[in-house]
Amino acid sequence: MNLLQQFNTVRAQSIEMCKPLLTEDYVLQVAFFASPPKWNLAHTSWFFEEFILQSHYPSYKHFHPQYAYLFNSYYEGAGKRTSRDERGTFSRPAVSEIYEYRKHVDHHMQELLQKEMQEEIVELVILGLNHEQQHQELFYTDHKYNFSRNPLNPAYSDIPFAEKGEMPKQEYIKFGTGLFEVGFGGDSFSFDNESPVHKIYLESFEISNRLVNNGEYLEFIEDKGYHRYEFWHEEGWKWVNDNGAEHPQYWQMKDGTWYQFTLAGLRELKDNHPVTHVNYYEAFAFAQWKKMRLPTEFEWEVASEKFQWGDRWEWTESAYLPYPGFKKPEGTVGEYNEKFMVNQKVLRGASVVTSAGHARKTYRNFFHPHLGWQFTGIRLAK
Amino acid sequence: MNLLQQFNTVRAQSIEMCKPLLTEDYVLQVAFFASPPKWNLAHTSWFFEEFILQSHYPSYKHFHPQYAYLFNSYYEGAGKRTSRDERGTFSRPAVSEIYEYRKHVDHHMQELLQKEMQEEIVELVILGLNHEQQHQELFYTDHKYNFSRNPLNPAYSDIPFAEKGEMPKQEYIKFGTGLFEVGFGGDSFSFDNESPVHKIYLESFEISNRLVNNGEYLEFIEDKGYHRYEFWHEEGWKWVNDNGAEHPQYWQMKDGTWYQFTLAGLRELKDNHPVTHVNYYEAFAFAQWKKMRLPTEFEWEVASEKFQWGDRWEWTESAYLPYPGFKKPEGTVGEYNEKFMVNQKVLRGASVVTSAGHARKTYRNFFHPHLGWQFTGIRLAK
Amino acid sequence: MNLLQQFNTVRAQSIEMCKPLLTEDYVLQVAFFASPPKWNLAHTSWFFEEFILQSHYPSYKHFHPQYAYLFNSYYEGAGKRTSRDERGTFSRPAVSEIYEYRKHVDHHMQELLQKEMQEEIVELVILGLNHEQQHQELFYTDHKYNFSRNPLNPAYSDIPFAEKGEMPKQEYIKFGTGLFEVGFGGDSFSFDNESPVHKIYLESFEISNRLVNNGEYLEFIEDKGYHRYEFWHEEGWKWVNDNGAEHPQYWQMKDGTWYQFTLAGLRELKDNHPVTHVNYYEAFAFAQWKKMRLPTEFEWEVASEKFQWGDRWEWTESAYLPYPGFKKPEGTVGEYNEKFMVNQKVLRGASVVTSAGHARKTYRNFFHPHLGWQFTGIRLAK
Amino acid sequence: MNLLQQFNTVRAQSIEMCKPLLTEDYVLQVAFFASPPKWNLAHTSWFFEEFILQSHYPSYKHFHPQYAYLFNSYYEGAGKRTSRDERGTFSRPAVSEIYEYRKHVDHHMQELLQKEMQEEIVELVILGLNHEQQHQELFYTDHKYNFSRNPLNPAYSDIPFAEKGEMPKQEYIKFGTGLFEVGFGGDSFSFDNESPVHKIYLESFEISNRLVNNGEYLEFIEDKGYHRYEFWHEEGWKWVNDNGAEHPQYWQMKDGTWYQFTLAGLRELKDNHPVTHVNYYEAFAFAQWKKMRLPTEFEWEVASEKFQWGDRWEWTESAYLPYPGFKKPEGTVGEYNEKFMVNQKVLRGASVVTSAGHARKTYRNFFHPHLGWQFTGIRLAK
Repeated sequence: MNLLQQFNTVRAQSIEMCKPLLTEDYVLQVAFFASPPKWNLAHTSWFFEEFILQSHYPSYKHFHPQYAYLFNSYYEGAGKRTSRDERGTFSRPAVSEIYEYRKHVDHHMQELLQKEMQEEIVELVILGLNHEQQHQELFYTDHKYNFSRNPLNPAYSDIPFAEKGEMPKQEYIKFGTGLFEVGFGGDSFSFDNESPVHKIYLESFEISNRLVNNGEYLEFIEDKGYHRYEFWHEEGWKWVNDNGAEHPQYWQMKDGTWYQFTLAGLRELKDNHPVTHVNYYEAFAFAQWKKMRLPTEFEWEVASEKFQWGDRWEWTESAYLPYPGFKKPEGTVGEYNEKFMVNQKVLRGASVVTSAGHARKTYRNFFHPHLGWQFTGIRLAK
Repeated sequence: MNLLQQFNTVRAQSIEMCKPLLTEDYVLQVAFFASPPKWNLAHTSWFFEEFILQSHYPSYKHFHPQYAYLFNSYYEGAGKRTSRDERGTFSRPAVSEIYEYRKHVDHHMQELLQKEMQEEIVELVILGLNHEQQHQELFYTDHKYNFSRNPLNPAYSDIPFAEKGEMPKQEYIKFGTGLFEVGFGGDSFSFDNESPVHKIYLESFEISNRLVNNGEYLEFIEDKGYHRYEFWHEEGWKWVNDNGAEHPQYWQMKDGTWYQFTLAGLRELKDNHPVTHVNYYEAFAFAQWKKMRLPTEFEWEVASEKFQWGDRWEWTESAYLPYPGFKKPEGTVGEYNEKFMVNQKVLRGASVVTSAGHARKTYRNFFHPHLGWQFTGIRLAK
Repeated sequence: MNLLQQFNTVRAQSIEMCKPLLTEDYVLQVAFFASPPKWNLAHTSWFFEEFILQSHYPSYKHFHPQYAYLFNSYYEGAGKRTSRDERGTFSRPAVSEIYEYRKHVDHHMQELLQKEMQEEIVELVILGLNHEQQHQELFYTDHKYNFSRNPLNPAYSDIPFAEKGEMPKQEYIKFGTGLFEVGFGGDSFSFDNESPVHKIYLESFEISNRLVNNGEYLEFIEDKGYHRYEFWHEEGWKWVNDNGAEHPQYWQMKDGTWYQFTLAGLRELKDNHPVTHVNYYEAFAFAQWKKMRLPTEFEWEVASEKFQWGDRWEWTESAYLPYPGFKKPEGTVGEYNEKFMVNQKVLRGASVVTSAGHARKTYRNFFHPHLGWQFTGIRLAK
Repeated sequence: MNLLQQFNTVRAQSIEMCKPLLTEDYVLQVAFFASPPKWNLAHTSWFFEEFILQSHYPSYKHFHPQYAYLFNSYYEGAGKRTSRDERGTFSRPAVSEIYEYRKHVDHHMQELLQKEMQEEIVELVILGLNHEQQHQELFYTDHKYNFSRNPLNPAYSDIPFAEKGEMPKQEYIKFGTGLFEVGFGGDSFSFDNESPVHKIYLESFEISNRLVNNGEYLEFIEDKGYHRYEFWHEEGWKWVNDNGAEHPQYWQMKDGTWYQFTLAGLRELKDNHPVTHVNYYEAFAFAQWKKMRLPTEFEWEVASEKFQWGDRWEWTESAYLPYPGFKKPEGTVGEYNEKFMVNQKVLRGASVVTSAGHARKTYRNFFHPHLGWQFTGIRLAK
C-alpha cells in the first residue's frame, strides 16, 4: 500500500468502528481518562491539521477557528486547550459537524499525499496514522469504560472482544545470562521512545509461555489476595483499601457466579481466558503471591520471539524511562512521549483491540500503576 | 381545563421546549446541579409512575425494571438510585427510548384520568403537574448552564430569554408596622411549604418597586465591590476569593465591552435590564454597598401586590424554614420539601422561564447561597 | 467590681484554667475549629492591643511586630493573618513568651483603666472582656476536642465537666398565642446581634422543662435512628453516611457498655445526664423521631424564665439572622457578628463551661449545623 | 567500637541533636511527611522493642501497652497504628515520658548487648542503628520543614547547616562504554535494596565533578525556567502550576535580594553554594535547560570514586526498582524497603545532615518526585 492508501485505510477504520454507536454515545466521558468517541474522531483529525496542513499546505484554511482549542490533547506548543476532564462537557459541535471536519481534513490530506512530499512530511503523516491507531485502541477501551458505568450494562457489539480461546500449556522458557540488543533498529516506523538500539546485560531468567488466566487469578482472590498486605506495594495496598478493591474492575459476582463486563455486555467469566483489566498493583501482587515476579521490559523483548503475544498489554516491572542516548524530536511533536517519562510503568505487547499492524516487539506502551481500563494482562517471570 | 386537558398541556410543553435540541444536547451534565434534558424528561414521567400508576392503577406494568433506579431524584422512600452528579454518565437509554417511556406513562395516565378518581389521586396528579413545571424551569436553567461552559457559546434559540424590557422608574413603597397574614390559604394547589396561613409581625419598611438593573450592578463592580470584604459575609468573601469572582457568572468582558451569555448565545449587556444569575452572597453584598438590605420573605409577600414581579426569582434575607404548624405529608411525597429546610435561602416571585400559571405570591423557592444558575435577581428594601 | 477589677478577674481566669496543661498541650490543633490553648491566650491579648491600646494609648509599643499576623482571628480590617487551620503550625513563640505578652498587655491596660476614659473605650474594654470569656469557653471545648483524638484518652482534670446531676421530672410548659417582646433592652452589656428589642408574633406552643437525657437519646439509637432517613434533613443524612455516624461524637461502646469522653477522661455514660455534643442534624432527627420539634429562638427566649437553663447550649430551629433594624458597629469590630449571619443555626442558653455571668436569656450563640464540639444539648417543643 | 559502644553512641546522638529544641517544638507536625521530633525519638525506640526485645528478650515488659499503636510507622505486620499525618495530633505522652521510654529500652538493650547473641539478633541491632541514623537525618529535615512554615523564621542553631564552602572548578569526567559491577558486595552492613551485586552495561558518558550551585540555578530562574513548559515533565509542569512554583521551596526574595531559609534561620543566598531542596521535577527541568541530563544511579555509582560527594542527596534519572535477584528479608522487616519500589526516584550520595559513617557509594535513597524537603541537589551528566 502506498501512503495515500494507508491514509485512507486508517481513516476509514476510525469511522467503521463507530458504526454501532448511537449519537448519544459519542458525547459521553465518565472519567478523566476515558475520552468521548466524538473527541477521539476530532482530535485525530486535528493532529493532521496542526502538524501537517497548517505548516506544509500553504493554502489550507482551518475548518473552525476554535477546534484547536477544543481538540488539542496535551501539546503545550500548540496553544491553549480544554482540560482532559472537560472533553465530555460540550455537546456541540454536533457529531455531524465532526464528520464534516474529518472530510475537510481528509480532502486536503489526500491532495497533499498525491504530490511530491519532503521526507519530513512523510514522516509526520506516518506518525499521524500511528497516532490515529493509538486512538482507535483508546476508542474501544474508553468506550468500554464509559459503558461499564451504566447500570443497564449496554453492549457495543455482539463480538466478545474481551474473550480469547484456549492458551498453550504452561511452560517456562529459559534464557541464559548475557548481553542483548534491545530497541528499534529498522527502517520502518517506530516511536521515538523505542530508540536508540542499545545493549543490555541480563541475568539468566525464565518467562512464561502464556498469560495468566482467569482461573488462576480467581485462586488468588479466593486465597484472600486482596486482604493480605504482604503481596502489595504500600501504594497498592492504599489503592486496595481506598477503593475497597476485591477483584478486577469489570468483574462482578451475581448469585454466586462471576461475570465480566465486556464490549458485548455482561458475560459469564471463563476460567481459561486470560485475565484482563488488572492494574500494575494487582499484577505485582498476583506475582508475589505466586512467588514469582513480572518480567522487565528487556527480558520481555528478548524473549518475545519464543512466545505468542498480542492479546493483552502486559505489565512489566520496568519504569518508563528514556533509553541511553534518547533524543526527543524538535518542535511540538517532541511532546509526544518524553514528557510522560516519570511515574509510569512500561507495558509490552499489544491487545485484542490494537489495530492490525500497529505494534511490534520493541513497542513501549505506558500507564500509571493504578489504571486498568486498557486490556492489560499478566505474564510471569522468575 | 379539566385535569386530563391540564395533564396533556403540561406534558406537551416539556416536549415542545426540547425541539431546538440536538440529540447530543440531551445527554449533557456539566455540573452536579444541572441535569441533562433527557433525565428531566424521564424523571418527570417516573414521578407519575412511582407515585400514582404503580399504587393506584393495578394492572400497570413498569416500562423498564431499572428506570426507577436511573430516574429517581432524591426520594429515599422510593429505593436506591444513581447519585445526582451521575445523571450525565449514561448515554443509554437512548433519547428515543425516553420518548417511548413518556408515551407509555402518558397513555396509562390518560386512561386513569378518564375514570372516577379519589381525591387523594387527583391531588397527586396536580402535584405531579406542578412538579413537571418545576422541571420545565430547570430545563431552561440547566441547559443554559450546560451550554455556558461550551467555548463555542451555542444558542438554544433566538428568543433572548434573559432579556427584559424597560422597568418602571425607581420608587420605594412604604409599609407601616403591624400584624400581617402570610402563607397560602386558598382552595387551589399550593406546595406544603406555603402552609399554614399564619400571622407575622412586621416593623415598618420600604421596598423597591423594581429590580436592580445591570447598570446599577455595574457601578458596584466599578466601585470594586468584589474587592471590598466589608460588603460580604465571611462565607461570601471566601466564595469570592476561592472563585476569583469579579462579576455575575454569565458576564464576560471582551475588548472593553460587557457581554452576557444567554439562551440566545452571547449578547451585549443592556444596562436597563434586570441583573440576573447573581447568587445570594452577591445580592447581599450589593445591598450592603447600597446601604440597604434584602427584604424578608414576609415583607416581600405582604408588598407583592404593589409591584410587578415574575421576571427574576428574588433573593430574600429569610432562611428556608418550616412555617409554624407545618406538617409534612405522609409517605414518600413528604420528602418533597421538608428535608431541604436547612442552609438554604428563600427566593420569592418567579422568572422569565417559569411556566405560565405556576407561581403565586406565597410560592417559596429555595437555593443554597452560592448558587446562581437560576434566573435570580435583586430587589432592595430598607 | 469596677472595670479594673473586672479586667483583672477575667484575665486571671484565662491563666487559671491553663494550670492543668503541660507545655506540649498548648501547641495542639487537631481540627480547624479547635484552636491551641496558646493561640487563645495570645489572641485575647491581641484583641485589647488591636482595638484599644494601639489607637487609644498613644505611647503604646507593640510587644512584637508579627503577633498581629499570628493572632488576628478573622478581622479583615485588621490586616493579613494566618488561616484558621494553621494555628497549630507554629511552636514559636514559646508558651513563656505568650505569658510575657499577656503581662505586657495587662500592664498597659491596667494603666489605661486607672485613667479617665471615654465611653467608647469603656465599651471596647467590656467587649474585650466578653470576648475573652467566649474564648474561655472555647478553651474547654477546643482542648476537649484535641484530647479526644488522642488514643490514650488523657484527662484535663478530675472534675467531670460533662456531667450533671438529676434533672426535674419531665413536663411541658404551655404558652398561648400572642405578641411578645424579644431582644436585649437593658443598660448593661450585650452583643450587637441581640438588638434591637422587637416584637414577635408567636402561635401557642409547649416547651419542655428539661433537656433530653442520655437514656432518651439511647432509645433513639436503639430504635435505629441513625439508619432511618425519614428523621433527617437531606444534608443531615449525607452527614450520617459520609461519617458513618452511629452516636454522639464522644460516645464509644466498649465490651457492651457505653462510655463518653469527658474532660476527666473516658467515663461511663449516665442515663439521667443531659445528652451533649450532638450537632443540629442529630438534634433535629431526635426531635422528629419523638414526633416533636426544636423550639425557635423566640419561643425559647419567651419561655426561658419558666425553666432552668445553663448546662448546654440548646439548638433551636432558628437560622442566625439579623433582627429587624439591626445595625452593625462602625469599624473593624463590626466584623464581630454580622458577617457570620448565613448558614448557621442559633443556640440559646449557656453551658457548664461558660464563664460565670457571661450569658443571659437574650444571648445568641451560633454554629454550623454539622458541628457538635461545644457542650450542646436538646430541648423539645411542640 | 563494639556493638554496645556503637549502640550507645548512636542513641546518644539522637538526644544530643534535640538539645536546641523547646518542649513546644517536639510536638509539631506541619506536613504529613515531616514527623514531630517526639515521634522520631519514640519510633526509633519502638523499633528495638518490636523487632528485638519482645521476641529475643523473654522477660521484657513493654513500657506502655499503646506505644506500638502510636509509634509504629508503616509495618503492617506489627499491627494497627496511627496514620502518618496524625503524628502531630497527640500532645501526650509528654516529652519527659518519651525520654523515660528511651531509657527503658536502652537499659534492656544494654543488658542484651552484654550477652552472647545469635547472628540474627546482631544483624537486627545493626539494622536498628542504621534505622535510627536515617531518622537522625529526618530529624533535621523534618524539623527544618516544620520551622520553615513559621512566619517568625526561627533558627534551630547558629551552625548554618545548609551552607557549604567553595566547590571545585567545573569539569566533566569521562567514562567509556562497558560492563560494570554495581551493588553492595562487602561484609559490613548494607540495606537489602543494595543487593545483590550485579553487572550493568553502560554506554560512554560524562559526569560533572561537582554539584550545581545557586548561581547557576538562578540563571535558570532568570531565563524563565519556571515558565517554559518545554523543560518539564507533564507532571512537573502540573506541579509548577498547581503550586505557583517560581524557585526552590526555601528561597524567598525580599527587597530585591534572595534569601534561603536554613536551620540557622533566614540567610542571604550564596551563589557558589550547592543548590538544595529542589525536587526531581526541578532537577530534571534544570538539566533540560542546560541541554544535559541527570545521571542514572549506575553511572553515579561507577563514577563516584572520581568526585566528592556527601553534601546533597543527588537526584538520579533512575526509578527505584529491585535489583536482579533481589530477595526481601523474611518477616516484618521485609517491609523495610521493597514495598516502596514504585513511583519513586533514586537519590545517591548523602547530605550535610547524614550521620557520620551512615552512607556509602552503593546506598540508595528514594523519594517521590515532587518532594524536596531533604537536602537534595543536582549533578549533571551528558
